[in-house]
Amino acid sequence: MGESKKQEEINQLLYKYASEGKTVVRLKGGDPYVFGRGEEECAYLVEKGICCEVVPGVSSAFAVPAYAGIPVTSRWMSSGVTVLTAVRSTGEVIDLDYVPKKGTLVILMGVHVADRLKEQLLKVRPAGEPVAVIENGTLPGQRVFVSTLEKLDVVVRENKVRAPAIFIVGEVVKLRSALTR
Amino acid sequence: MGESKKQEEINQLLYKYASEGKTVVRLKGGDPYVFGRGEEECAYLVEKGICCEVVPGVSSAFAVPAYAGIPVTSRWMSSGVTVLTAVRSTGEVIDLDYVPKKGTLVILMGVHVADRLKEQLLKVRPAGEPVAVIENGTLPGQRVFVSTLEKLDVVVRENKVRAPAIFIVGEVVKLRSALTR
Repeated sequence: MGESKKQEEINQLLYKYASEGKTVVRLKGGDPYVFGRGEEECAYLVEKGICCEVVPGVSSAFAVPAYAGIPVTSRWMSSGVTVLTAVRSTGEVIDLDYVPKKGTLVILMGVHVADRLKEQLLKVRPAGEPVAVIENGTLPGQRVFVSTLEKLDVVVRENKVRAPAIFIVGEVVKLRSALTR
Repeated sequence: MGESKKQEEINQLLYKYASEGKTVVRLKGGDPYVFGRGEEECAYLVEKGICCEVVPGVSSAFAVPAYAGIPVTSRWMSSGVTVLTAVRSTGEVIDLDYVPKKGTLVILMGVHVADRLKEQLLKVRPAGEPVAVIENGTLPGQRVFVSTLEKLDVVVRENKVRAPAIFIVGEVVKLRSALTR
């Protein structure tokens, strides 16, 4: 609820300054259109007659795996990548209709629901599928743990992984050893 | 075949200059780890003892939709996005195991197989699902066509769409009218 309030305030501030004739820059980390609320802010302004330009950014969904030595696609191992939030806006933990049987999964914001997430994913993915857990990706304190899907929750618990963290599920995790020294 | 040869030559050139003690920059459009061959080049070099650093870029998979006014995720409409190539390295047109039932699909390099792609996607997605075809995305000559999945091939044919083009499948296509003026 607190977050919703804040978003509404941001929208109003953007509108306030823009309607005073100012050029307003809303600077975000990552890509504003990849789980970035850019759509909400832009739709709010456009409806009020304010023109918006959205400049794409480098999404953490692809950049964090890259800095951990994991390419999200691979010519030989994965011809697709799916980016998901672990918890939907409805509060529900991952809807399996969003999860393909094959290809890389990049799962955002899953630390607090790692156990339920694992249970769900095991319904459509093999228990032995490689998994990487990346905490504080790209930052000096980055930690990377490689395991298998059946141990996802254990890895998170035993290493006291804290948000922000990204989970990668898929064969591409195996490439890490070939791409880092 | 021509392309494979060229990739091998690129790998060798990277190695040649690096082994002469030079710092080599391999500059790519988009993100080197999102269908970018970065993995192949990096693995080749690491195996030969050359250190690599991969700097993530802005992927066309997200940036092209953004410039066409389409966010690939939406708090209300799509809590996931899948990026796929239309044709796999094996030559096969899209493997449905890579296609989730819900969420946004961003399909790269599909112009020449639009008819077969449509047939495949109709096995898992509704005929009336919104589709956008973006030709020359982000460039001055950009063209955007909005339709439904059942007409994907017709849209491509009637408008003589040529590569490079990206297809977007999903409810988020409807947001375009709210996000552009």
